[in-house]
Amino acid sequence: MTETEKENLLKLVIEEFIPFNKLIAIRVASYDPLVLTIDNRPDLLGNALRQMLHGGVIASLLDVIGGASLIKRYLDNNEVEDRSQVAEALSRTATIDLRIDYLRPGIGERFTATAEIIRPGKRVTVIRMSLFNEQGTLIAVGTGTYTV
Amino acid sequence: MTETEKENLLKLVIEEFIPFNKLIAIRVASYDPLVLTIDNRPDLLGNALRQMLHGGVIASLLDVIGGASLIKRYLDNNEVEDRSQVAEALSRTATIDLRIDYLRPGIGERFTATAEIIRPGKRVTVIRMSLFNEQGTLIAVGTGTYTV
Amino acid sequence: MTETEKENLLKLVIEEFIPFNKLIAIRVASYDPLVLTIDNRPDLLGNALRQMLHGGVIASLLDVIGGASLIKRYLDNNEVEDRSQVAEALSRTATIDLRIDYLRPGIGERFTATAEIIRPGKRVTVIRMSLFNEQGTLIAVGTGTYTV
Amino acid sequence: MTETEKENLLKLVIEEFIPFNKLIAIRVASYDPLVLTIDNRPDLLGNALRQMLHGGVIASLLDVIGGASLIKRYLDNNEVEDRSQVAEALSRTATIDLRIDYLRPGIGERFTATAEIIRPGKRVTVIRMSLFNEQGTLIAVGTGTYTV
Repeated sequence: MTETEKENLLKLVIEEFIPFNKLIAIRVASYDPLVLTIDNRPDLLGNALRQMLHGGVIASLLDVIGGASLIKRYLDNNEVEDRSQVAEALSRTATIDLRIDYLRPGIGERFTATAEIIRPGKRVTVIRMSLFNEQGTLIAVGTGTYTV
Repeated sequence: MTETEKENLLKLVIEEFIPFNKLIAIRVASYDPLVLTIDNRPDLLGNALRQMLHGGVIASLLDVIGGASLIKRYLDNNEVEDRSQVAEALSRTATIDLRIDYLRPGIGERFTATAEIIRPGKRVTVIRMSLFNEQGTLIAVGTGTYTV
Repeated sequence: MTETEKENLLKLVIEEFIPFNKLIAIRVASYDPLVLTIDNRPDLLGNALRQMLHGGVIASLLDVIGGASLIKRYLDNNEVEDRSQVAEALSRTATIDLRIDYLRPGIGERFTATAEIIRPGKRVTVIRMSLFNEQGTLIAVGTGTYTV
Repeated sequence: MTETEKENLLKLVIEEFIPFNKLIAIRVASYDPLVLTIDNRPDLLGNALRQMLHGGVIASLLDVIGGASLIKRYLDNNEVEDRSQVAEALSRTATIDLRIDYLRPGIGERFTATAEIIRPGKRVTVIRMSLFNEQGTLIAVGTGTYTV
């Protein structure tokens, strides 16, 4: 698969196949390095007066970029022939635990998530994630443990 | 305030004032003990084939019951005259960190969250939460640290 | 193996084979239910004026009871013939992540830890632990994720 | 206070005043940037065969560098006249929660911890820590939430 094919496949999985990702409109902004984004919307707020993104939306985006990192690693390390392989790989992936540190109020128009695999295990992978607003302010960080 | 007035006020805050709670339809099912629920819906799934609730929805509900526990404690411990006091109290509340352990697949029709304050500090409160499906299966547990 | 033989084997592993457990004098007080204890000592304090147990000692005891729970489960579920099997099982066990909530000052003469397996996975097990002083005051709780 | 006086005061607090730090021989290797070290010793092992540092020792060192970061910040931001002020500041500091991710086996001769304040709150501070061996291998990372 070419890089573009891999990006398109990841987009399909993250943006189309996972219903809740679609509801909150998570987007794959870049494949390598992997970047996900979410645009602020009135119905995603946790505090309407202060225009702050809901903590659950932040947790969702950070969890999703963890899973997306695992799919990307799978695509990069395997000769993928068709989509069913990816669906199969995805279905064997599960979040074991997820921790979010909310550092600053979730104020902004577009939020960007990045991730780094810090324990690349065969059975268990640990990933650290960061969430920024469009001004580059670090809003939240997270750590997730995943089985693969 | 009577118990019913307090419950109605909490319902208003949780179900109406917080936009994202409304999007995913979080409900206050009981005031004392505090119980929140969420009904499964096609657009809340993380895995459509296996009909599993998205991990971000689980994290959201657990975060929200943490905050709701703080509002309930505020209502129970203070003579609240009007809603603006509660809005004021709420705006001083923030999640510092949140940890979720995903124990079993989020399969079910209705999910129920309960919470217990395990560190009732003046400045920092730690709360443990649990999420069950309608058959009483424990799906996830969480711990949140909140400032008040 | 009889219950007593299993208890003696667990004692040997926890109290004798693991050097740091010996340094801080962790004891197996009961096999079923599993209970570990540690006695307060001047050199285990984090705050000598206030006679508080060091947070690292609390973390250590909670981590150890997580590992001990896994060994106990192994002993209960397998026909163990000799010690080398247990050593082998132990060497495949590792803590992936550990989270401690410090709820109250670690004041007391004897600290008691208990544990509960909340996600009994084949590859990944999640365990919740609690630490009490001799008056039954809950001092700290923890959650650990382990590979097995 | 000069930089050297501040470093000496921090050394005194971390290396001498806290009994358990003394037992496991935690050292302040550098004040700015703040670096703590611990030398491997037979009685600090969790697995004698594989010569691995005990997970509780790792958790201890990471917790201690979190607290040390708070003392350093206090020394840097206040005109400290005498030691009793620092003791007073220290006694108001407490770990709320601590999370450790064990990334690789704790193999090495000298372990080095560094820390970064990621949420510099007035009431609650969140700190991320890292632990390396003498070859620069990242062994563990942690996140702690502290009241000040």
